Amino acid sequence: MSEAAQTLDGWYTLHDFRTIDWASWKMLSSDKRETAIVELKQFLQKLEEVQDKKEGSHAFYSIVGQKADFMLMILRPTLDELNELETEFNKLTIAEYTIPTYSYVSVVELSNYLAKESNEDPYQNPYVRGRLYPILPQTKHVCFYPMDKRRSGEDNWYMLSMEERRKLMHSHGLIGRQYAGKIKQIISGSVGLDDWEWGVTLFSDDALQFKKIVYEMRFDEVSARYGEFGSFYVGNLIKDIDKLLAV
Amino acid sequence: MSEAAQTLDGWYTLHDFRTIDWASWKMLSSDKRETAIVELKQFLQKLEEVQDKKEGSHAFYSIVGQKADFMLMILRPTLDELNELETEFNKLTIAEYTIPTYSYVSVVELSNYLAKESNEDPYQNPYVRGRLYPILPQTKHVCFYPMDKRRSGEDNWYMLSMEERRKLMHSHGLIGRQYAGKIKQIISGSVGLDDWEWGVTLFSDDALQFKKIVYEMRFDEVSARYGEFGSFYVGNLIKDIDKLLAV
Amino acid sequence: MSEAAQTLDGWYTLHDFRTIDWASWKMLSSDKRETAIVELKQFLQKLEEVQDKKEGSHAFYSIVGQKADFMLMILRPTLDELNELETEFNKLTIAEYTIPTYSYVSVVELSNYLAKESNEDPYQNPYVRGRLYPILPQTKHVCFYPMDKRRSGEDNWYMLSMEERRKLMHSHGLIGRQYAGKIKQIISGSVGLDDWEWGVTLFSDDALQFKKIVYEMRFDEVSARYGEFGSFYVGNLIKDIDKLLAV
Amino acid sequence: MSEAAQTLDGWYTLHDFRTIDWASWKMLSSDKRETAIVELKQFLQKLEEVQDKKEGSHAFYSIVGQKADFMLMILRPTLDELNELETEFNKLTIAEYTIPTYSYVSVVELSNYLAKESNEDPYQNPYVRGRLYPILPQTKHVCFYPMDKRRSGEDNWYMLSMEERRKLMHSHGLIGRQYAGKIKQIISGSVGLDDWEWGVTLFSDDALQFKKIVYEMRFDEVSARYGEFGSFYVGNLIKDIDKLLAV
Amino acid sequence: MSEAAQTLDGWYTLHDFRTIDWASWKMLSSDKRETAIVELKQFLQKLEEVQDKKEGSHAFYSIVGQKADFMLMILRPTLDELNELETEFNKLTIAEYTIPTYSYVSVVELSNYLAKESNEDPYQNPYVRGRLYPILPQTKHVCFYPMDKRRSGEDNWYMLSMEERRKLMHSHGLIGRQYAGKIKQIISGSVGLDDWEWGVTLFSDDALQFKKIVYEMRFDEVSARYGEFGSFYVGNLIKDIDKLLAV
Repeated sequence: MSEAAQTLDGWYTLHDFRTIDWASWKMLSSDKRETAIVELKQFLQKLEEVQDKKEGSHAFYSIVGQKADFMLMILRPTLDELNELETEFNKLTIAEYTIPTYSYVSVVELSNYLAKESNEDPYQNPYVRGRLYPILPQTKHVCFYPMDKRRSGEDNWYMLSMEERRKLMHSHGLIGRQYAGKIKQIISGSVGLDDWEWGVTLFSDDALQFKKIVYEMRFDEVSARYGEFGSFYVGNLIKDIDKLLAV
Repeated sequence: MSEAAQTLDGWYTLHDFRTIDWASWKMLSSDKRETAIVELKQFLQKLEEVQDKKEGSHAFYSIVGQKADFMLMILRPTLDELNELETEFNKLTIAEYTIPTYSYVSVVELSNYLAKESNEDPYQNPYVRGRLYPILPQTKHVCFYPMDKRRSGEDNWYMLSMEERRKLMHSHGLIGRQYAGKIKQIISGSVGLDDWEWGVTLFSDDALQFKKIVYEMRFDEVSARYGEFGSFYVGNLIKDIDKLLAV
Repeated sequence: MSEAAQTLDGWYTLHDFRTIDWASWKMLSSDKRETAIVELKQFLQKLEEVQDKKEGSHAFYSIVGQKADFMLMILRPTLDELNELETEFNKLTIAEYTIPTYSYVSVVELSNYLAKESNEDPYQNPYVRGRLYPILPQTKHVCFYPMDKRRSGEDNWYMLSMEERRKLMHSHGLIGRQYAGKIKQIISGSVGLDDWEWGVTLFSDDALQFKKIVYEMRFDEVSARYGEFGSFYVGNLIKDIDKLLAV
Repeated sequence: MSEAAQTLDGWYTLHDFRTIDWASWKMLSSDKRETAIVELKQFLQKLEEVQDKKEGSHAFYSIVGQKADFMLMILRPTLDELNELETEFNKLTIAEYTIPTYSYVSVVELSNYLAKESNEDPYQNPYVRGRLYPILPQTKHVCFYPMDKRRSGEDNWYMLSMEERRKLMHSHGLIGRQYAGKIKQIISGSVGLDDWEWGVTLFSDDALQFKKIVYEMRFDEVSARYGEFGSFYVGNLIKDIDKLLAV
Repeated sequence: MSEAAQTLDGWYTLHDFRTIDWASWKMLSSDKRETAIVELKQFLQKLEEVQDKKEGSHAFYSIVGQKADFMLMILRPTLDELNELETEFNKLTIAEYTIPTYSYVSVVELSNYLAKESNEDPYQNPYVRGRLYPILPQTKHVCFYPMDKRRSGEDNWYMLSMEERRKLMHSHGLIGRQYAGKIKQIISGSVGLDDWEWGVTLFSDDALQFKKIVYEMRFDEVSARYGEFGSFYVGNLIKDIDKLLAV
């Protein structure tokens, strides 16, 4: 048996992707549309207040292409809170005019591959806390994709020794470091929680950086031999809900 | 030919996942919604009475994310009873406002990999009976996923000798034992009954334990080389049906 | 080139799986529901008359879980007859309240792997005729699944010699023989007719036998190395149509 | 680089599979149904006239099972004509009562693996012309399936030398020749046009021949090691449109 | 770690495929249909004006077969502009009568495999600019497909050295060059942006050239061993919107 990597686990995370049913939305009277928009804003305002208290965070982005019209990403300390917010959203008027297209359940995670030996409780370390309980940045663009480590014939990540994995992850991390300042990355683990093993959420003001970092990493052995990737979603910060929903 | 593992088989099990059609549900008059909720509670009350007599068991959990809004898991001595309950549920008013998203048919199972030699009839052993005909716990969280043992090239579980499989399962079991007290696990076999070979249902008051146990086991050779996993569903105990369905 | 196995081919077979649209069915007036049930019974009565004359056979089972609510399996001498019955069913009132979920087109088949050398015309042999043109049993339970023989790298059934395949099939047959009296099996070939190569339909009064035989066979090299399996459907004999459709 | 096989290319081909929405069709008044049938017959009559002038061909078959209720196969000299006919069909009244289930775009093709060396322009050869611009036969049954040549590890068709491929195709052709008189086969190439590399359409008065030829060929190395197959569709010649659509 | 290929990146690109809901479209009054067509033409006119200023480009083609009725391909300098145009299209009346079937998000890309060493800034080179910011040709036919470079066992593109990849790409490019004058090709990269790694859009006045080039390239090692292909879409230039939408 190969030694399992230990992880540090932070906030539970829900990525919720939906498409707007424009035809039905347009059939609604402008009054009712206005009411629905106000209701949505109040819901987002409540999320904002929680974020202000640093008891959770969220992000609201449009998605380019037909996979979804928007993504609402919510982080909370418990699975119960996530579920309640999801149900609350489902009961909003606007939800009647959206079609769920994809969702992802995970937990913000730091792996210990690159951790230094220490007697300190990492959950008390301010830097670690900042990464496990992050306030999401308001960058112009977002990119989300889920991924697995491959377990196929000779290319089986989970049969490698801890030492081999550590070495590979180190080289992987060096690439990531080159994008510091350009991309902020949230890794969330979903083994046992959803269909892929990790979710990667990238934030940047320059969407081209998503292409550059993922492409460069693909030549790195961790991705080249051991990475399996799900669907990629990219989008733009929603700055004006009224404009988005105006018809 | 490799020696087949013998199994002990208990109650038939149906995992039934559904999404609530909130838009239609909200269009219903509050009177009719109330009637539908009462009807659902009566249905669950009947399940409760069967469970009180230990003639079956069930669990009712919400599911986080878009895969489903809830899971109803029912255990009964016969396939006929499961089918009747399924049809009875389908005829409830509330069912008209739900969309089936996934189901799983299996039988609670104990494998004999770790069994001691004995002349005793295991079906008379109280410990074994307790595991084959379990009363499901009311933990705060649930996790369900189906799985296969891989049959691919060099990684073919079913071509291993009984002795090799026993050794691998032993090491696998040691990991599980570390989670005793934190997680209660129901394994149900579905070879010949549904599309995967086993269903795993985990119960815990701490959802993070699902992530920890599945991740740790993934480095164990049984999972790393021989495990194929389906979709993972996680959720919370439904404590208040009225609150869930209030709109 | 590897020598092809010769097959004996009997009746054309259609497995037709459907879900009942309970919400719409309940909206129908009880008079119209009654009319629809009478119509369905007349359709089944016609099938019954054909079966009485041994000019075909059929089976009507409920299916457990969300894959389908029922399976109608029909055997006829020609593809035209199957198609006509399918269209006739589609035009029934009840069909408007069902949603097709899966179907399978095949021909009842006996392979010659285990055949004895003989000058006799097998199609005149009463035992062979009984297996090619079977009257389906009315057991309490049914199990259906489609399958392929694998053609993947080192595990390529179709590259094996006739002699190797015969030896493997012999061992496979020995397992099957242990279930004589407990399970009645219909193998139907679908190469060139549907997406999998064979359909397997098992009939038994004890649903657990489906799990036992398929699990035991999975350790046999024919299945372990060369079997690829589709979806598994299990269900119960429909004894009372009125009860099933009462709402 | 392996030498590409040259192909001779004939008519563009559209296989169009559709299911009839019987519930909606039955709700239509019998007058409107009659009008829709007349319109469909006029559309088919126009195709007939083109075929009489040998400027194209078509076939209209029912399909057994739930994959489709019918297949309309149309051959024309240009992609534009195919597209226009497809759009014209979509605008027919009957189309409102059908649900598209599958389509295939390809070009009738002759490969040069078995070609004799010659200075002749093959497109002027009457035999070749008859095969590239075929008038489809009106056999009782049809079978359609798409396929690829495999490119997987050791089994990579496109890495074989021209000589190896020619030898394999020769043996493959010998099997086909045994079915001369029983089956008429149209091969159409779809590399760059649709998701599979070839479409195979078989015509026969005996549906069992489809099963026999495809099964026999599966033991031939070209199929056994290098064939990947899509869905198989089988059906019967539609002789009486009124009868098919009568409700 | 293998050296990543550098890319030059041009306009963001959205391929948007949709099917027309003919039944609903026909139910609309002819006045409202006319209004919807005028609105669509105004939308396309706006795209035209942007293209005239060389600040973007677009193409509007019908698609043959059931995968879609048309493809609208739009190129713009930013992801925001693409998203805005997508949303604007979604709000058009005609959009209510279309069903989204597929979309693709990418960036026009030139790889540096074949680049000459130079100190020049390639983004200032007029030839390079013409390829990164192309005005799409109005050829009679279009072909689109997404693709990956394979990462499977021995066939792992991303584990090859830069030198090996360069050599393979060189041979690949030689085939492409033979089609100069017949086919104009736009490669767009989508690593990190969509589910495949590249989108290939081919333009030609002769649809058969799509089949010829893709087939010929399939025997080239880059495709034969390392190419994975998604769905292929082919279609015809929409010259007359009124004719297409007339019912």
